Amino acid sequence: MILTLTTDFGAGSSYVAAMKGVVLSIHPSATIVDLTHDVPPQNLRFTGYFLAASVFYYPPGSLHVVVVDPGVGSRREILYVELNNQKFLVPDNGCWTFLLEPDLKPARVIQLNEANYWRPTVSSTFHGRDIFAPAAGHLSRGLNPELLGPPTNNWTSLEFSKPEISEKRIQGEVVFIDPFGNLLSNIPKEALEHWDKKSIVTYLDHFQIRNFSRTYSESPPGEPTVLFSSMNTVEIAVNHGNAARELKVKVGTPIILNIP
Amino acid sequence: MILTLTTDFGAGSSYVAAMKGVVLSIHPSATIVDLTHDVPPQNLRFTGYFLAASVFYYPPGSLHVVVVDPGVGSRREILYVELNNQKFLVPDNGCWTFLLEPDLKPARVIQLNEANYWRPTVSSTFHGRDIFAPAAGHLSRGLNPELLGPPTNNWTSLEFSKPEISEKRIQGEVVFIDPFGNLLSNIPKEALEHWDKKSIVTYLDHFQIRNFSRTYSESPPGEPTVLFSSMNTVEIAVNHGNAARELKVKVGTPIILNIP
Amino acid sequence: MILTLTTDFGAGSSYVAAMKGVVLSIHPSATIVDLTHDVPPQNLRFTGYFLAASVFYYPPGSLHVVVVDPGVGSRREILYVELNNQKFLVPDNGCWTFLLEPDLKPARVIQLNEANYWRPTVSSTFHGRDIFAPAAGHLSRGLNPELLGPPTNNWTSLEFSKPEISEKRIQGEVVFIDPFGNLLSNIPKEALEHWDKKSIVTYLDHFQIRNFSRTYSESPPGEPTVLFSSMNTVEIAVNHGNAARELKVKVGTPIILNIP
Repeated sequence: MILTLTTDFGAGSSYVAAMKGVVLSIHPSATIVDLTHDVPPQNLRFTGYFLAASVFYYPPGSLHVVVVDPGVGSRREILYVELNNQKFLVPDNGCWTFLLEPDLKPARVIQLNEANYWRPTVSSTFHGRDIFAPAAGHLSRGLNPELLGPPTNNWTSLEFSKPEISEKRIQGEVVFIDPFGNLLSNIPKEALEHWDKKSIVTYLDHFQIRNFSRTYSESPPGEPTVLFSSMNTVEIAVNHGNAARELKVKVGTPIILNIP
Repeated sequence: MILTLTTDFGAGSSYVAAMKGVVLSIHPSATIVDLTHDVPPQNLRFTGYFLAASVFYYPPGSLHVVVVDPGVGSRREILYVELNNQKFLVPDNGCWTFLLEPDLKPARVIQLNEANYWRPTVSSTFHGRDIFAPAAGHLSRGLNPELLGPPTNNWTSLEFSKPEISEKRIQGEVVFIDPFGNLLSNIPKEALEHWDKKSIVTYLDHFQIRNFSRTYSESPPGEPTVLFSSMNTVEIAVNHGNAARELKVKVGTPIILNIP
Repeated sequence: MILTLTTDFGAGSSYVAAMKGVVLSIHPSATIVDLTHDVPPQNLRFTGYFLAASVFYYPPGSLHVVVVDPGVGSRREILYVELNNQKFLVPDNGCWTFLLEPDLKPARVIQLNEANYWRPTVSSTFHGRDIFAPAAGHLSRGLNPELLGPPTNNWTSLEFSKPEISEKRIQGEVVFIDPFGNLLSNIPKEALEHWDKKSIVTYLDHFQIRNFSRTYSESPPGEPTVLFSSMNTVEIAVNHGNAARELKVKVGTPIILNIP
């Protein structure tokens, strides 16, 4: 079973190193894959977007351990979730619920409360090491998840903003900025299915964009263009450039597409 | 056998890539875990702290390869160390001796001098690739460490500053800053065992802190608080903030706790 | 078979996470090694230098997947290459041809055009996930590369600048800066074989350097020195310092060595 890690600990941090040690102490031949440790500190929406962009490419039955956990040590629960043939260990803070949209439902949600599968002493500041990692080690060895705690139907939900879609106008927003500075929006490709791409005028903050390309390299270097992302959403990029930096745009900036 | 790497080479550097290639050429099925490659260049104290926060979570018999080595190419020795059921390959510069405090003694220390287990040509600037990696590859395949060289009782020691502890006053210092900007001190939790936590006043540089929390989320957002770290030491944090940046504090800043 | 990844996606990006998922879905027990994900965006020369500094340390038959691909989605080809007992999947943009100097020839080059080994839907912006990763997954399971497409003798070449070498003067340039800020040049060690190292005067921009050392620690702290790199080329470093930052030098800066 493949076991992935997603945290906001920073790639080279001792917190990640300690978690891997705990997993490997329980299951020395575990296959551990780092999804990312570069979630901006405590950013649950980034986490949701990141998981949506990556977890469903993994083999069925993979276990994704997510430790972005501003409430560590408080009464928030830790959940084991089965969803679309993937498995998750997550804090109950909504970081994973973006995966439920639009029509996925979890096959099973369990509240971790069985301390037998935790480290003997649990700190109040590092549940990644003391609860998530040992539970993950046991699950990756084949532990029946029912032994971790009782099933539940209650969890915290976080929702992403939805775009407003009308016949000739769509308003969405930037939801994610990739490492190249490309701006990913919450506007799905299908929403533009019947639109004439060449006529679209896009407004991003005070910029007006009239290019609509199929690939990055098709647009003139240095000029912003709109295209479809590898997630099948509307994306804004600058060929050979960094759109976020050059257009001074942040997550949350509105994007308006219309046909004049 | 699990083989970990700790260097100051930078996570994406060709030096790390080359070292892994050399290990895998000798032992293609080695399990290599990156502890960190983000040690600040040549920082031996950071290395010591990092190892103390991570290596003892690994399965007994794991081999930890540490290449933070300002003296590369000089006459400094390279050591194989067995300590508390963990194994190490380290430059003899004290980067590992913080692990000896307070009462651990190495079970065995060997000086690497047997060039049969090195690359045929050894550069004077990259022993990580030319000595550490091949020796690690052979050890991970089960080589008897006695074949690497003779035992020794001499090594370079580096010690961490110790806090001054009296009945109503403790003076320590910041020894490590984590990726969230939390400040970890050299003051052990036991030193405060009989103190009334609510009465403690903490001085950090020109700041006075009167909060003492159990978890990060318990303290008011934006305000500094004192708590116990996952290493069982005194830590200073800002809930939803970055204490190091906001309080402008560096490693070495004194921390004074007292009961007025 | 070991499968390595080299990209400009950033180490913690969802693009890397997605690629690994696709590989593991096809070949769950693949051994994946991150060479680097920190190539500066779309920098083909950096990629070439990086590969030259790392791939030949890997076991024969390793597969190196390189996704530094400004032309993604355009008509540029994707190539499978066998070279010096190593295997590569690369965009046909010259990022790998530095490995051909001075006298290596590829044993085989194949153009990927067999969509059976790609993901069913191929986006125009993320061939790493949709073509490279599935092809790599199949190759790592033992797929005959002939099934990926037809052989070819045509590919795009990128060449590195060559130094000008005369009896008492060599002019080269900085081709790579390592994470310590050390400056690596394109001047081979052999070119200096018959020179008296102590008499060499080196000019780097407006700096004159008269130190020639064997190791970093041999030169006075804070002063620039010339030495031979672990790649057997001329390198300029500052002991306990960062030469690139302190001397304000970039890739492309000329280096002149002469005997007065």
